[in-house]
Amino acid sequence: MSTSDKTIYVVGHKNPDTDSICSAIGYAAFKNTIGDAAYVPGRAGNLNPETQFVLDRFHTEVPQLLSDAAGQTVILVDHNETAQAADNIADASIVEILDHHKIGDIQTSEPIYFRAMPIGCTATIVFLHYQEAKKTPEKNIAGLLCSAILSDTLAFRSPTCTGQDREAAEKLAEIAGIDDIQAYAKEMFKAGSDLLEKDPHDIFYMDFKKFTAGSTTFGVGQVTSMDADELAELKKRMSAYMNDTFSEHGVDMLFFMLTDILDESTDLICAGEGASEAASRAFHSAEDGRMYLKGCVSRKKQIIPQLTEALS
Amino acid sequence: MSTSDKTIYVVGHKNPDTDSICSAIGYAAFKNTIGDAAYVPGRAGNLNPETQFVLDRFHTEVPQLLSDAAGQTVILVDHNETAQAADNIADASIVEILDHHKIGDIQTSEPIYFRAMPIGCTATIVFLHYQEAKKTPEKNIAGLLCSAILSDTLAFRSPTCTGQDREAAEKLAEIAGIDDIQAYAKEMFKAGSDLLEKDPHDIFYMDFKKFTAGSTTFGVGQVTSMDADELAELKKRMSAYMNDTFSEHGVDMLFFMLTDILDESTDLICAGEGASEAASRAFHSAEDGRMYLKGCVSRKKQIIPQLTEALS
Repeated sequence: MSTSDKTIYVVGHKNPDTDSICSAIGYAAFKNTIGDAAYVPGRAGNLNPETQFVLDRFHTEVPQLLSDAAGQTVILVDHNETAQAADNIADASIVEILDHHKIGDIQTSEPIYFRAMPIGCTATIVFLHYQEAKKTPEKNIAGLLCSAILSDTLAFRSPTCTGQDREAAEKLAEIAGIDDIQAYAKEMFKAGSDLLEKDPHDIFYMDFKKFTAGSTTFGVGQVTSMDADELAELKKRMSAYMNDTFSEHGVDMLFFMLTDILDESTDLICAGEGASEAASRAFHSAEDGRMYLKGCVSRKKQIIPQLTEALS
Repeated sequence: MSTSDKTIYVVGHKNPDTDSICSAIGYAAFKNTIGDAAYVPGRAGNLNPETQFVLDRFHTEVPQLLSDAAGQTVILVDHNETAQAADNIADASIVEILDHHKIGDIQTSEPIYFRAMPIGCTATIVFLHYQEAKKTPEKNIAGLLCSAILSDTLAFRSPTCTGQDREAAEKLAEIAGIDDIQAYAKEMFKAGSDLLEKDPHDIFYMDFKKFTAGSTTFGVGQVTSMDADELAELKKRMSAYMNDTFSEHGVDMLFFMLTDILDESTDLICAGEGASEAASRAFHSAEDGRMYLKGCVSRKKQIIPQLTEALS
């Protein structure tokens, strides 16, 4: 198959986070240095404020919306599950996948390039491609990739963070001219916060993913903050929101993580029949549909496997 | 999770071919140079004569049989479909996958290392790991990996063969002390042949894989030979065998590829209701449940995608 006259979209998951957007932009830029097709970054939803801050900071345009993948040729970054992908992904031609999540349900009819690694961030895998090809990303691309790593690893605090992520972020920061990584991360997280000014619905869907375990569907949202008071106030608002709107979300159970980056802990809110019980089985403690999980900051590593097992 | 006191099996698909056996041995050897666990090559079935020749030639022991994967920790090589894996793979802990086939139905509950590439042979990916780690395989391991590439690519004749496969095979041949690659390949293919002395059942299952397309299950076997007369005689025997034993194979349709390496063509035999019709739709020609496909030598690239689409 000749790909020379083709547009190939590079796209992350729905409810995109900074990694899904920045890895799409970064990998499209990398693939365009090879030049066997036109690689175009896409997004499967609206940007959150953190990601908008990052794009503004590194003078990069918002990728074009790709809400319907039918008939398109696509590279998936930062996901490999149908439920998280742009609509009608089954009618798209998936030609590559880069990811750092568990292996999901995407299948293909032909061999493709699929590179998943159990590390903190897809952007680290994107940078690995630059390194293996002995290329250096442009300054702005390096800034985006570095931001994605800081975002996904909560500035190296998440248990998902590996030596490879930290090393990549440090090299990328140097290329991008970020002198103080932790100060920059704090600024970025702050831009993504100001949560109390937002509508609960918008907060809920800022970083929300759906999963299936056995015959149960469930959704897990997350906000991160460095401000404990803000999180305490949000806890009340989000609990009320989830109970009021439960039936509108189209899943059997809803969970919401209020993650305190400095305390390195998560308050988990549950809604839906059996949700508290499942969380109790998964995490061995619960009260009134809420639980405080010390040391828990990663949805992927510290919430999803445990919930999946408790529900299977 | 500490893996230091663990046995991790590296295992290929059922009805193992030379790539499944040699990549398992080669990747276990590579992983043991890192030494965070005890990596042991396994096999999910009996060796075919070609693979036995290769192991003998490079003084390597036959891997231990791993027919039941329940409770084991495994790395999959050369497959990523449940139907092709050792029994009870759903009850195993899959920690890595290296493959060069389409993306199948294996899912995991945690992020893992999954590296699939659209190239000719898994052994090329194994060698890539040595190269990326700046290590050189032992002489016998290089011989096994080189043999796997020659086997899967029909000594560079298959359309699945890429520049990476050829380059890897040439470097490996040098390490292994194989002076004339094509002469060695011919010797290896010859050892895997002598097909007329074998029972049709054994020939049928030497290299047989099951697939699912929509609600239809089908199996596709393949033999390769450099001897057109041998293939002509086999065609009669295998047609009779497939018709006589059809109900015993547990699939809706059976296909068998008689591939002539020198002519670079395949005679395809079909059995089961609708099988000839499906093949006609897929390949646009058929007569009497048989078809001659000029230029077709690769099951993965030239048979499975086309049949899958015709049956979906």
